[in-house]
Amino acid sequence: MEKWDGNEGTSAFHMPEWMQIQFADQKQEFNKRPTKIGRRSLSRSISQSSTDSYSSAASYTDSSDDETSPRDKQQKNSKGNSDFCVKNIKQAEFGRREIEIAEQEMPALMALRKRAQGEKPLAGAKIVGCTHITAQTAVLMETLGALGAQCRWAACNIYSTLNEVAAALAENGFPVFAWKGESEDDFWWCIDRCVNVEGWQPNMILDDGGDLTHWIYKKYPNMFKKIKGIVEESVTGVHRLYQLSKAGKLCVPAMNVNDSVTKQKFDNLYCCRESILDGLKRTTDMMFGGKQVVVCGYGEVGKGCCAALKAMGSIVYVTEIDPICALQACMDGFRLVKLNEVIRQVDIVITCTGNKNVVTREHLDRMKNSCIVCNMGHSNTEIDVASLRTPELTWERVRSQVDHVIWPDGKRIVLLAEGRLLNLSCSTVPTFVLSITATTQALALIELYNAPEGRYKQDVYLLPKKMDEYVASLHLPTFDAHLTELTDEQAKYLGLNKNGPFKPNYYRY
Amino acid sequence: MEKWDGNEGTSAFHMPEWMQIQFADQKQEFNKRPTKIGRRSLSRSISQSSTDSYSSAASYTDSSDDETSPRDKQQKNSKGNSDFCVKNIKQAEFGRREIEIAEQEMPALMALRKRAQGEKPLAGAKIVGCTHITAQTAVLMETLGALGAQCRWAACNIYSTLNEVAAALAENGFPVFAWKGESEDDFWWCIDRCVNVEGWQPNMILDDGGDLTHWIYKKYPNMFKKIKGIVEESVTGVHRLYQLSKAGKLCVPAMNVNDSVTKQKFDNLYCCRESILDGLKRTTDMMFGGKQVVVCGYGEVGKGCCAALKAMGSIVYVTEIDPICALQACMDGFRLVKLNEVIRQVDIVITCTGNKNVVTREHLDRMKNSCIVCNMGHSNTEIDVASLRTPELTWERVRSQVDHVIWPDGKRIVLLAEGRLLNLSCSTVPTFVLSITATTQALALIELYNAPEGRYKQDVYLLPKKMDEYVASLHLPTFDAHLTELTDEQAKYLGLNKNGPFKPNYYRY
Amino acid sequence: MEKWDGNEGTSAFHMPEWMQIQFADQKQEFNKRPTKIGRRSLSRSISQSSTDSYSSAASYTDSSDDETSPRDKQQKNSKGNSDFCVKNIKQAEFGRREIEIAEQEMPALMALRKRAQGEKPLAGAKIVGCTHITAQTAVLMETLGALGAQCRWAACNIYSTLNEVAAALAENGFPVFAWKGESEDDFWWCIDRCVNVEGWQPNMILDDGGDLTHWIYKKYPNMFKKIKGIVEESVTGVHRLYQLSKAGKLCVPAMNVNDSVTKQKFDNLYCCRESILDGLKRTTDMMFGGKQVVVCGYGEVGKGCCAALKAMGSIVYVTEIDPICALQACMDGFRLVKLNEVIRQVDIVITCTGNKNVVTREHLDRMKNSCIVCNMGHSNTEIDVASLRTPELTWERVRSQVDHVIWPDGKRIVLLAEGRLLNLSCSTVPTFVLSITATTQALALIELYNAPEGRYKQDVYLLPKKMDEYVASLHLPTFDAHLTELTDEQAKYLGLNKNGPFKPNYYRY
Amino acid sequence: MEKWDGNEGTSAFHMPEWMQIQFADQKQEFNKRPTKIGRRSLSRSISQSSTDSYSSAASYTDSSDDETSPRDKQQKNSKGNSDFCVKNIKQAEFGRREIEIAEQEMPALMALRKRAQGEKPLAGAKIVGCTHITAQTAVLMETLGALGAQCRWAACNIYSTLNEVAAALAENGFPVFAWKGESEDDFWWCIDRCVNVEGWQPNMILDDGGDLTHWIYKKYPNMFKKIKGIVEESVTGVHRLYQLSKAGKLCVPAMNVNDSVTKQKFDNLYCCRESILDGLKRTTDMMFGGKQVVVCGYGEVGKGCCAALKAMGSIVYVTEIDPICALQACMDGFRLVKLNEVIRQVDIVITCTGNKNVVTREHLDRMKNSCIVCNMGHSNTEIDVASLRTPELTWERVRSQVDHVIWPDGKRIVLLAEGRLLNLSCSTVPTFVLSITATTQALALIELYNAPEGRYKQDVYLLPKKMDEYVASLHLPTFDAHLTELTDEQAKYLGLNKNGPFKPNYYRY
Repeated sequence: MEKWDGNEGTSAFHMPEWMQIQFADQKQEFNKRPTKIGRRSLSRSISQSSTDSYSSAASYTDSSDDETSPRDKQQKNSKGNSDFCVKNIKQAEFGRREIEIAEQEMPALMALRKRAQGEKPLAGAKIVGCTHITAQTAVLMETLGALGAQCRWAACNIYSTLNEVAAALAENGFPVFAWKGESEDDFWWCIDRCVNVEGWQPNMILDDGGDLTHWIYKKYPNMFKKIKGIVEESVTGVHRLYQLSKAGKLCVPAMNVNDSVTKQKFDNLYCCRESILDGLKRTTDMMFGGKQVVVCGYGEVGKGCCAALKAMGSIVYVTEIDPICALQACMDGFRLVKLNEVIRQVDIVITCTGNKNVVTREHLDRMKNSCIVCNMGHSNTEIDVASLRTPELTWERVRSQVDHVIWPDGKRIVLLAEGRLLNLSCSTVPTFVLSITATTQALALIELYNAPEGRYKQDVYLLPKKMDEYVASLHLPTFDAHLTELTDEQAKYLGLNKNGPFKPNYYRY
Repeated sequence: MEKWDGNEGTSAFHMPEWMQIQFADQKQEFNKRPTKIGRRSLSRSISQSSTDSYSSAASYTDSSDDETSPRDKQQKNSKGNSDFCVKNIKQAEFGRREIEIAEQEMPALMALRKRAQGEKPLAGAKIVGCTHITAQTAVLMETLGALGAQCRWAACNIYSTLNEVAAALAENGFPVFAWKGESEDDFWWCIDRCVNVEGWQPNMILDDGGDLTHWIYKKYPNMFKKIKGIVEESVTGVHRLYQLSKAGKLCVPAMNVNDSVTKQKFDNLYCCRESILDGLKRTTDMMFGGKQVVVCGYGEVGKGCCAALKAMGSIVYVTEIDPICALQACMDGFRLVKLNEVIRQVDIVITCTGNKNVVTREHLDRMKNSCIVCNMGHSNTEIDVASLRTPELTWERVRSQVDHVIWPDGKRIVLLAEGRLLNLSCSTVPTFVLSITATTQALALIELYNAPEGRYKQDVYLLPKKMDEYVASLHLPTFDAHLTELTDEQAKYLGLNKNGPFKPNYYRY
Repeated sequence: MEKWDGNEGTSAFHMPEWMQIQFADQKQEFNKRPTKIGRRSLSRSISQSSTDSYSSAASYTDSSDDETSPRDKQQKNSKGNSDFCVKNIKQAEFGRREIEIAEQEMPALMALRKRAQGEKPLAGAKIVGCTHITAQTAVLMETLGALGAQCRWAACNIYSTLNEVAAALAENGFPVFAWKGESEDDFWWCIDRCVNVEGWQPNMILDDGGDLTHWIYKKYPNMFKKIKGIVEESVTGVHRLYQLSKAGKLCVPAMNVNDSVTKQKFDNLYCCRESILDGLKRTTDMMFGGKQVVVCGYGEVGKGCCAALKAMGSIVYVTEIDPICALQACMDGFRLVKLNEVIRQVDIVITCTGNKNVVTREHLDRMKNSCIVCNMGHSNTEIDVASLRTPELTWERVRSQVDHVIWPDGKRIVLLAEGRLLNLSCSTVPTFVLSITATTQALALIELYNAPEGRYKQDVYLLPKKMDEYVASLHLPTFDAHLTELTDEQAKYLGLNKNGPFKPNYYRY
Repeated sequence: MEKWDGNEGTSAFHMPEWMQIQFADQKQEFNKRPTKIGRRSLSRSISQSSTDSYSSAASYTDSSDDETSPRDKQQKNSKGNSDFCVKNIKQAEFGRREIEIAEQEMPALMALRKRAQGEKPLAGAKIVGCTHITAQTAVLMETLGALGAQCRWAACNIYSTLNEVAAALAENGFPVFAWKGESEDDFWWCIDRCVNVEGWQPNMILDDGGDLTHWIYKKYPNMFKKIKGIVEESVTGVHRLYQLSKAGKLCVPAMNVNDSVTKQKFDNLYCCRESILDGLKRTTDMMFGGKQVVVCGYGEVGKGCCAALKAMGSIVYVTEIDPICALQACMDGFRLVKLNEVIRQVDIVITCTGNKNVVTREHLDRMKNSCIVCNMGHSNTEIDVASLRTPELTWERVRSQVDHVIWPDGKRIVLLAEGRLLNLSCSTVPTFVLSITATTQALALIELYNAPEGRYKQDVYLLPKKMDEYVASLHLPTFDAHLTELTDEQAKYLGLNKNGPFKPNYYRY
């Protein structure tokens, strides 16, 4: 029988299959893409997330279709520095503007910078990072710099780099190695250029997906002697760290910023509430009012999607496997059905399960003409897109990220982003949400870097609840929100410290 | 630094002051009420919850104002049985109708009864219970009977008993000792009559508030030798059990049904979403549209209140001490303020904090004329009602549960339920919500009664998540809701058992 | 001054059958009730609305079941005046408190009183009124008095009078003739006592239902020579006036306050949005979350009901006959169905059509056990309640206004208010809504009384839009709402007068 | 047949200034743009709407920057026909795909086509049209063709033509004269090419903005002898027709399709509810949750904007001049303020008033950094953009349709679409909404073309309500919506025809 905690469970929590088979999958997928010649052979492919299409912001400038590889170019920034590799250093000015826009919606990082004018909590830190290279990451990176750190950076995804932003960072003196459309070989080359530097050795890792961590484990295991900790953001990367930990191979403390409350609620519930509408509009220009929609899965993402569509006048059905979430769906006013019951009548099918083959070929065969199918959940497994690649079906690309799959009788299914994540592929993630994640990353780095010997062992940790609360509090001024303070008497009555933490660990928010 | 679990925290979780001072408080409050002569002296007063006013359903029949104490009456049911003590056995028929109505909305218990036609999982169980005596408890009690148990029952609150329902239970052969308007002495006398019986000794306890448990500890400690376990529902009772456990004095396993997900989400979020409207309407007939409301506290209760009032066209402000909940309030579209900022302009003040003195005399002095003040949170501490009992203010009872407090300048504040819980005092709790709790209690009793030796130690346990999920699944048919089943392949992919549990323990729902 | 825009259309607009057959119907219904002996024979029964059950506020005081008819009592108020006939003059103090509470939510009338301190726009007016006698009407009546008018008043409904309020008015010197539970004979006697007074002749009529107007036409047609106009509030009364006008028999100007925008939107959309929830809760204590509901009719009332239930987590279906309203229902997120399609699955059926036999015996036969059936629309025609009064069905009154109708197989239907209006029978109408109507009535009286000769002919008029806007503006301060004023330049640009009216007559709001 | 209900009123309804000064304004605006040489001098500039930027759908294909004017090209379609003038006939295939996609969401027109297989209600009709040339118009045009009509078409806006769609129409044999980026001279040349054809003379006009009608009045007044009627869609065009009518110069019947219920509710309330979110997201990627927004004007457009933003978690303030709309805003849960009260604190300002200078330079000066300003109302007058074109302010174009206006102290205002209509400039109008308008246009053409002599005089008419209802009913199948039919008995009871119309003319919906 279960006691009130999550620990026991974890030991019995089997590694889900999708973690195990991931690498094979990726290789397959990777092989389907025409890549340039791999210059050296690699022990494994890059992680799936590294190749997910990610169109968050199309390149803003008219990227001249310059065919020369950045690796073959000689570029210097205006101060004569050439320790970087980006598409085109001349795009720096445009990138700088995007960074300035992003700064407006990242008040917490700007507040951290201000406080750092006195003390430099990251003085001496040498951070190697591997994340999406976007305006928001740039604000994070420049904040880390302001806090005293030296940084070297690569991209965690071969498609997601904003070349202008990379240029602006390079112009500002940051050794950045990233461009949009890297080959697999480029990908590892860039990471290596961040790590393998004469006279410079990282003492902190900021990773998103685990590829950077993997590379150091593989190539420079000795570096870990000087490394004080790893901060990891992604589901995938966090799982890898837990695996390492279980296998006894994790040799430094690691901080899981993926599962903090603020990130979970913002990235999933609040962010998806907006991005489902945005993603559907940008791709299909459809009207939501009166449309029948089935949302598969009523976790945080499903809850966000359902709430938004209901508010816009759609009629929403929900499928669930978990009776508790199912009961929540009922109480929130959604009919709980099996997919089969409504598949013939719905106008839109949205998957948010984290599961695989939730929408099968059989379902697709039964959908009505013009039905829109898309995925807001995990990776690209939820819709069995592979089953649609058969000779009797015709694919027609009607817009970017929009395919019509046409049945022999003329029926068309509108498939978005080929079943990949709609919100990453076809909408943008609001800066404000990224701000919360970036602030959490910065605080995690500060905590790990400054923690006294012994506070953290070679294990995976969550950010202390108090720091979660701190991240939240840094974002309240954006909303001109005024927090109430407990009186001494009240704090005593509740048995709480006036400065928090305010809730027991198991609180569900 | 915190690891991913709740355990460590608990050890450092100080007993909140409101737990410690509770007994003194109650005595004070108790003394204010004119009680009949206490026939014997008591070691301590009854718990606060036992005296909370609770009007859930006013007595349905025209209770003739019979002044004779039930203890002095000689009553028999139609089968000649007299092992009970209720107000008036003749009201049984009316009570039976209420029970039948309740059965319609308690499908899960009725389903358990059906399954029990073959096996009797509670055969041999002798359950002594102490809960509110309502139509819904009657359905629970009769279900326990159908499952094979013998039951004896007392009321956990001196006001909440529905006399007709008690009569119906007595008529049906249940030894029930309860009536509306017990004195403190009556209260303990009834409990004693349940426990202290010749030739019958309980082996299970179902408690709500901990008074029954307390009585047995005090008077019949030896009984615990035969008792297989305690099932406790209330916040207060659960805290007492944890205290006993920490002090090493808990001598049987106990099941905390208060903190199960389904109960939390239903009793708080979903139930309060409806009862805030109901309670305000029944007391004030006010219109919600356009009204300015401040809700203190954005936990589950506050979230429910805010959502409902927003939907009805009120303009809602929120106060919070916890920055994470505060950020949720912002994202949900509520201005986060300090109470002082809006106290002059709001039409309604609602407290849902669990804290004390959230609304002070100073706030009350500054409210505008006709402002409505009420409490949806914990006990009666949130509004400093005591501060209003001063000579310069006039109290005028305008309706049941509605007082006008009048300032010298003529300003009136509309105080509901004297600051006690609005939803208990002025609205009814929907049967469906009570069904979830009752089902959880029944399952907890079955689990504890049938658990093999050694599965449970002398500690406080939560219902296993799988049973939580079972409770939820028993309620889905009410909504004609159809759960999806995992395929073998999907279960493998997710690393889950097809029958659940479906989520890690720390999942927030 | 604007005329009834729809008049032209009316020529082609046949008098609906429900207007024609009304009187016969009423007689039938009336005969079903055991009445005391009619003292004189009447040319026709009172209007249907006069006998609708109306429980808006149950009597607040413990009405001693005094069997003496008020007509047989000798009562005087504290000033020795005896020109009134109420249940019990001693209840005046309690009624006064209710009036004072009502004043708080009727800011517009209070504002009119303040302005009237200088001029008395109704000086010389002798108003005879026939409306519901409630605290809100009392505020209206006392406002008319403050504006200079003399008033005499009777009840427009035999059940709706609040005896305490009537007493308070009598105590304050108003000749009021009304009590709860009048017989038909009492009803006309009271009206007659208002009209047929020595030395006093009315010059204005304020009517609600047309019975007063009818009585004067019948008995004292000569009085119309001195009467300056009629203000009529109800649908029924307004239709009667149009009939009179068409027949050339309307001999004074009449003002239709029923169809003003503010009244329509408030009485229907906003008020029903709240009262559907209130009425269902007070009668059934049901939970709305997850319930399946069908709402018949998507006019203003249906829109209000649907919006409220959707917000509370119900799943709502809509039926409609009008394709435009049907399309609105779709865009607002409701599945549009025929009643037959969902009748087996829904938990609640609500009628809001104004039509008859919308819910037939056949539908009732097919509903599932425990289905709740109620009417928010017109009169008591929408549900074919008569069809349920057959020998094989058992009726069980389970609470006030709640009947279980039981089929031979044990299936129960929960019928509310015997198919009469739920919002009138089982919930209260918020004072604020009544305030809008009452203010409109007051302004209509002022306008008709002060209009120069010739402005109004012997026809039915709508309140000028500017006055509608004035009523609205008088209610804005309640919400601390600040209106923007047009600049001269903007007014010129829009071709509008700065003080309104701001919209063309056909504007839909 | 129903006439424009508002006509009578119109006599007292002064022509608003914005109608009078429009032409001057346009000329000014026009002069600011560098146009190619006007080949002939024009009596007046084209209408304002003709030059509004309109990016509804950016050109889908990579329009090679072909500098040759279409007027100078020799093009033929695949059947050798050259009676058209478009950008590039080779883009026809891509345009055809867009038309096919649009057909999916225009079920009503497709239904009309089906019915037309038997009879051809437009046989003999020669329609000259001047509208936006989009995929949706193409569906309309091809439907008119299927109904028997011959069509010639020009664009009503110099920017809005989709070249691919124009090509597809030309390829299908329609004489289309339109391309994106016409000069003013091109604009009139195209219209002339539609009208001035040897051996072909139009007998019906379908206009959007009145420019086509104006041209025929000016150049070919004799044509009106054969013209059976004008169908006009735009606010501007309709006003011009009313002016002509008032001046006694309207020489054929005209149908105002702008003010039909379905168009009003769909184009404004439902469409803006979606497009406000879409337009803000596409331009700024902002997060709505927690943002403070002020919406100026609470008509249908304002209502839609407010509802959408509230649903997404924004805190919304409203300004209004009309007390009735203001009271609606209150009841819907929005604080009613003057712009000045909140201008310093809001994150977004949205105008929907139809007024001018609602947002002044003074307001702009007081906004906080990063405040977003946009217009959803009428034309480009609501925000005083001109006042921002002063030397001390810097303009920075950061994205298409997005300008940063920078104050000397560094404060930036984010101005969208230079104050033009956000929904036209920065989002797309859902096909479904356009379908309703297009169907109304088609029915109006059929009605006017087939009306017996004398049914329509030389005046402006609204579509009969019954046809409005027909348009709505044609769109219900899209939602699988099932209308209920009145029984004979019910129709009689209500005094209605079973087939409608179902409401009096003044019904507000």
